[in-house]
Amino acid sequence: MIERLRAVGTAGLSTALRRRGYHDVFLDGVRPLAPGMRLAGPARTLRFVPFRPDLFAERGGGLNPQKRAFDTVGAGEVLVIEARGRADAGTLGDILALRARYAGAAGVVSDGGVRDTAAVVATGLPVFASGSHPSVLGRRHVPWETDVVITCGGAAVVPGDIVVGDADGVLVVPAALAGQVLADAEGDEARDAWIAARVAEGESIDGLFPMNEAWLARYQASR
Amino acid sequence: MIERLRAVGTAGLSTALRRRGYHDVFLDGVRPLAPGMRLAGPARTLRFVPFRPDLFAERGGGLNPQKRAFDTVGAGEVLVIEARGRADAGTLGDILALRARYAGAAGVVSDGGVRDTAAVVATGLPVFASGSHPSVLGRRHVPWETDVVITCGGAAVVPGDIVVGDADGVLVVPAALAGQVLADAEGDEARDAWIAARVAEGESIDGLFPMNEAWLARYQASR
Amino acid sequence: MIERLRAVGTAGLSTALRRRGYHDVFLDGVRPLAPGMRLAGPARTLRFVPFRPDLFAERGGGLNPQKRAFDTVGAGEVLVIEARGRADAGTLGDILALRARYAGAAGVVSDGGVRDTAAVVATGLPVFASGSHPSVLGRRHVPWETDVVITCGGAAVVPGDIVVGDADGVLVVPAALAGQVLADAEGDEARDAWIAARVAEGESIDGLFPMNEAWLARYQASR
Amino acid sequence: MIERLRAVGTAGLSTALRRRGYHDVFLDGVRPLAPGMRLAGPARTLRFVPFRPDLFAERGGGLNPQKRAFDTVGAGEVLVIEARGRADAGTLGDILALRARYAGAAGVVSDGGVRDTAAVVATGLPVFASGSHPSVLGRRHVPWETDVVITCGGAAVVPGDIVVGDADGVLVVPAALAGQVLADAEGDEARDAWIAARVAEGESIDGLFPMNEAWLARYQASR
Amino acid sequence: MIERLRAVGTAGLSTALRRRGYHDVFLDGVRPLAPGMRLAGPARTLRFVPFRPDLFAERGGGLNPQKRAFDTVGAGEVLVIEARGRADAGTLGDILALRARYAGAAGVVSDGGVRDTAAVVATGLPVFASGSHPSVLGRRHVPWETDVVITCGGAAVVPGDIVVGDADGVLVVPAALAGQVLADAEGDEARDAWIAARVAEGESIDGLFPMNEAWLARYQASR
Amino acid sequence: MIERLRAVGTAGLSTALRRRGYHDVFLDGVRPLAPGMRLAGPARTLRFVPFRPDLFAERGGGLNPQKRAFDTVGAGEVLVIEARGRADAGTLGDILALRARYAGAAGVVSDGGVRDTAAVVATGLPVFASGSHPSVLGRRHVPWETDVVITCGGAAVVPGDIVVGDADGVLVVPAALAGQVLADAEGDEARDAWIAARVAEGESIDGLFPMNEAWLARYQASR
Repeated sequence: MIERLRAVGTAGLSTALRRRGYHDVFLDGVRPLAPGMRLAGPARTLRFVPFRPDLFAERGGGLNPQKRAFDTVGAGEVLVIEARGRADAGTLGDILALRARYAGAAGVVSDGGVRDTAAVVATGLPVFASGSHPSVLGRRHVPWETDVVITCGGAAVVPGDIVVGDADGVLVVPAALAGQVLADAEGDEARDAWIAARVAEGESIDGLFPMNEAWLARYQASR
Repeated sequence: MIERLRAVGTAGLSTALRRRGYHDVFLDGVRPLAPGMRLAGPARTLRFVPFRPDLFAERGGGLNPQKRAFDTVGAGEVLVIEARGRADAGTLGDILALRARYAGAAGVVSDGGVRDTAAVVATGLPVFASGSHPSVLGRRHVPWETDVVITCGGAAVVPGDIVVGDADGVLVVPAALAGQVLADAEGDEARDAWIAARVAEGESIDGLFPMNEAWLARYQASR
Repeated sequence: MIERLRAVGTAGLSTALRRRGYHDVFLDGVRPLAPGMRLAGPARTLRFVPFRPDLFAERGGGLNPQKRAFDTVGAGEVLVIEARGRADAGTLGDILALRARYAGAAGVVSDGGVRDTAAVVATGLPVFASGSHPSVLGRRHVPWETDVVITCGGAAVVPGDIVVGDADGVLVVPAALAGQVLADAEGDEARDAWIAARVAEGESIDGLFPMNEAWLARYQASR
Repeated sequence: MIERLRAVGTAGLSTALRRRGYHDVFLDGVRPLAPGMRLAGPARTLRFVPFRPDLFAERGGGLNPQKRAFDTVGAGEVLVIEARGRADAGTLGDILALRARYAGAAGVVSDGGVRDTAAVVATGLPVFASGSHPSVLGRRHVPWETDVVITCGGAAVVPGDIVVGDADGVLVVPAALAGQVLADAEGDEARDAWIAARVAEGESIDGLFPMNEAWLARYQASR
Repeated sequence: MIERLRAVGTAGLSTALRRRGYHDVFLDGVRPLAPGMRLAGPARTLRFVPFRPDLFAERGGGLNPQKRAFDTVGAGEVLVIEARGRADAGTLGDILALRARYAGAAGVVSDGGVRDTAAVVATGLPVFASGSHPSVLGRRHVPWETDVVITCGGAAVVPGDIVVGDADGVLVVPAALAGQVLADAEGDEARDAWIAARVAEGESIDGLFPMNEAWLARYQASR
Repeated sequence: MIERLRAVGTAGLSTALRRRGYHDVFLDGVRPLAPGMRLAGPARTLRFVPFRPDLFAERGGGLNPQKRAFDTVGAGEVLVIEARGRADAGTLGDILALRARYAGAAGVVSDGGVRDTAAVVATGLPVFASGSHPSVLGRRHVPWETDVVITCGGAAVVPGDIVVGDADGVLVVPAALAGQVLADAEGDEARDAWIAARVAEGESIDGLFPMNEAWLARYQASR
């Protein structure tokens, strides 16, 4: 199912989610680190809080929550990082990206910055972030905890949500809805592809998009 | 003339407009959807207002103003969309882009988002927008009316204005000024190309850019 | 040393600067005009103030401070421009970029806009800026003075500071610290490259990043 | 009914609107010009577009749409101005405020700036705006048209909508919903006032806010 | 000690915290709901996450975390709310403020909005927030959990931190530092008051602020 | 003349400046620290640059440029501070305000924050700033130099410019234009006051504002 979610993409899923009252599932303000990146997979989460010396002393060193998250991310998972939308500090770099890549992670989404950008891109790991920045995370963040409900890009992300990202953006699909949302989205996409083919042939969109009964009949006959 | 406006580009036109007191003709905050996109053509306009259930019920369905605009955009025209600068909802997608492309439209400028980004780029239609977003327009907008004076990217756009876009940005040239502005801009560009050639040969810009009388004489002699 | 600073890059330098209490050396909000641009070199500075007719009359014409700065930038130098972060006016164009390129300048960093973007990229000069814009600088700026301490991208820049830029961003290294900061950064980079190689082989980062004593011993033995 | 809408206030109306799917009816970013201002009344609308010399020549002079709107605003009406959220130019001043006050207007809401702030406050007219600014509207705006659907503070405003403003903010109630929304809001308010009285007596809010069956029974018995 | 922290105020505490490396303890973007409000007390915390239907269904109803926090806030405590800086929804209203007031809470700090503003002010409870808004919290938030480390106004807040607010803003003092920070701040304040008295008598600040040895001797003699 | 500039106020001066092509003279984003503050006087200037340890060591201590500026500000002068619009650090506090007050300064305008807000207000010195903040200036700034052309609130300020501030905002009048701008503004104000009186009597603004020939004749006859 993950593969099909990745294939159908965020635009189609967004419509199916909207139909069920899910309007606020978009992780806005993040962009793929390189053109063409896509990802889909269940969310692992990591939450940063603002830098403070005592908190950094408590949780910033050694195998801190950030490093533990990257060290334990599983094959097919997407690590999602709450960095409060701040692009002025790195939230991952090349070593952590390599580790996630080695583990077979499906990607990383951070609403903070990326460090070692060129090297991170070179790992081949799909990464969506709010920008690039040379600094280490300690400039702004303390890595605080993992596997809790977080905010990323203005949306709530629950561990286990299905995260999907492509050139249109990134969104989450609550796991309980994934099956029906996917079915809807695939149906919509088949219909829209058929409409697009008609438009490419020169048809007016009047009555075709959205389809009136006549066009709907032709569409259904074509299947 | 449209072709010449497209060739001379926004930088040259901007100077000629400024000379006539037009300082606020820039559609800021929009970027080409893919590198290298350029466009020029007379403006068709489309105005969205913020989403509200009653207004969407009134004008959101069927061949609404958005769809009518895309269905009737003419060859060589540029469709300009007022979306109040919000990148958090789509304002066009692949089917509408295909339709505009089929009609021979010169392009689309929207200060909202684009949906189905990859497929829109694939149509070959030049599109300038404020970002990409998976959601449908109903998340934020009601398509309200066409062919009125609108605001896009902070500038007023009048139906029939000449819209020009390239790597520097997008601007409008009031139709009544297009001829003289073009003449000015072409003259400036010829002069600047000649200056650039001298600079590339190693000349100092002191006295050359802007040209003093001596350099002006040499320039005029060269023509 | 400049070449080595360029090679080690901003991420490594940022850590070494942080260790010495330099947290606010980042020229944020600027991006390379084309992918892959990098630069390093001592700063020349240029300060713009907001447009006002009397001030523009006094310093806007002829070989004004902007043109003088580009005409006299030396081989290997980086010209840094204070434009108050405004992307809504050009702060350099193709003729000035050509001149800097001819002089062998290492690059330009402006927290304002670039005009003639395609032509500037074509010169091959590395340029980092806050965006592109068709307008001339007189829309927002008066070129005021050169070779003073300025603000660019939120950081103070002193003439002679070493400016380094790459895909992660741009920062300044105070000249007096350049030697020790470089030494630190190269040491860190060698260590991190060795760690990355281990991670690529499948090692956990637990104990390896950061290194515990056992890993440190292996690292030191490897050198 | 207007008086009752004004009395019940925006907080109560907001809940009743939300219950009917109206989530985006808030004119955000505007504040009362002086503490304690309140207003309620049917909307008259005025739309500005960005300044451009030709458009200002066409509609900026004489009894332009701005002046006509203020000259004809009726007793009890609220004039709502679309100024694209820009606080950097005045959109009304003391003479126009006086005129509206003389006509018995219920108030003005502008998402632009106010000029002659002290004198406008002295007229006693309730005004909500995005700030104060000394400049005339021609710095940023052309007064374009009246009595059309506009955007103000991020919400669509239809002529005839009921506009209500108080210390919490400003919102619109679609005219067709005003009766039922008011009834709901008054019911809620009576209940909340009763709850508040209990809380002021020291009751825990557990079971009381929201009310469980026991508290509901006591509430209903009290009426 | 709380009373003395409140008396010394945020400006003095800020200097003493800075001396110990605490630069990022400010809850920026919040303002007192009415002039003259001040507060000090140990922090209770409440964390909201972005609205989503399934999460709201899970934790939005009944005695949810928001209501539980207000129902159990203790005498002298300050309730601090993480609302991600969004002023476009209420995060507390008059009933909850009354409850906190009844319990003797020292105040509330929210980086979200306040609903029923006039009634909240009337309770006399000191409240600092990012603005006022008529809507209920469900427009943007799900009340998620209490008594965890949160972010408010860009700073980390730990349950038990001492929160201090006045006309200059709001900050947190880590509990372990409160004693020494207070001592420092009181010492600074005594000195600055003495300096201010000299300045009011007409002394130049040269040598006096900061004090040179001569002035320091006079100051110490005066005590 | 200063007294008359203060009396006529920023709205009237703005129109007279606009007539001469001065559109960008507004110090936007600053507000009076307490209601009713007004100021007018020639500008003294003070420029801060972003914090950096080496620069602060060089110019942050002792009688630094900030303290020297406050210590030497003359009777009737307005001290204007460039703080790059950052409200997250103090740029003056009570001791410096007292000193300026003692010297008879006309006021202070800073596009940074104010510390010790209540005490600064109590001095009676008119202060316009971008906000309040508890921190010292060293959190963000190095006091760099005085008596140079600076940027404040987005406008260029030249030492000797006449600075005028009231409830509408703050602007600068270039000294060379002050006489004629004042004459214009006083003429406009007399006319507008006469118009306002007519409007208060119930006249329509049609033909009156702006005045047609008939009203103009009556106005001139009235003088």
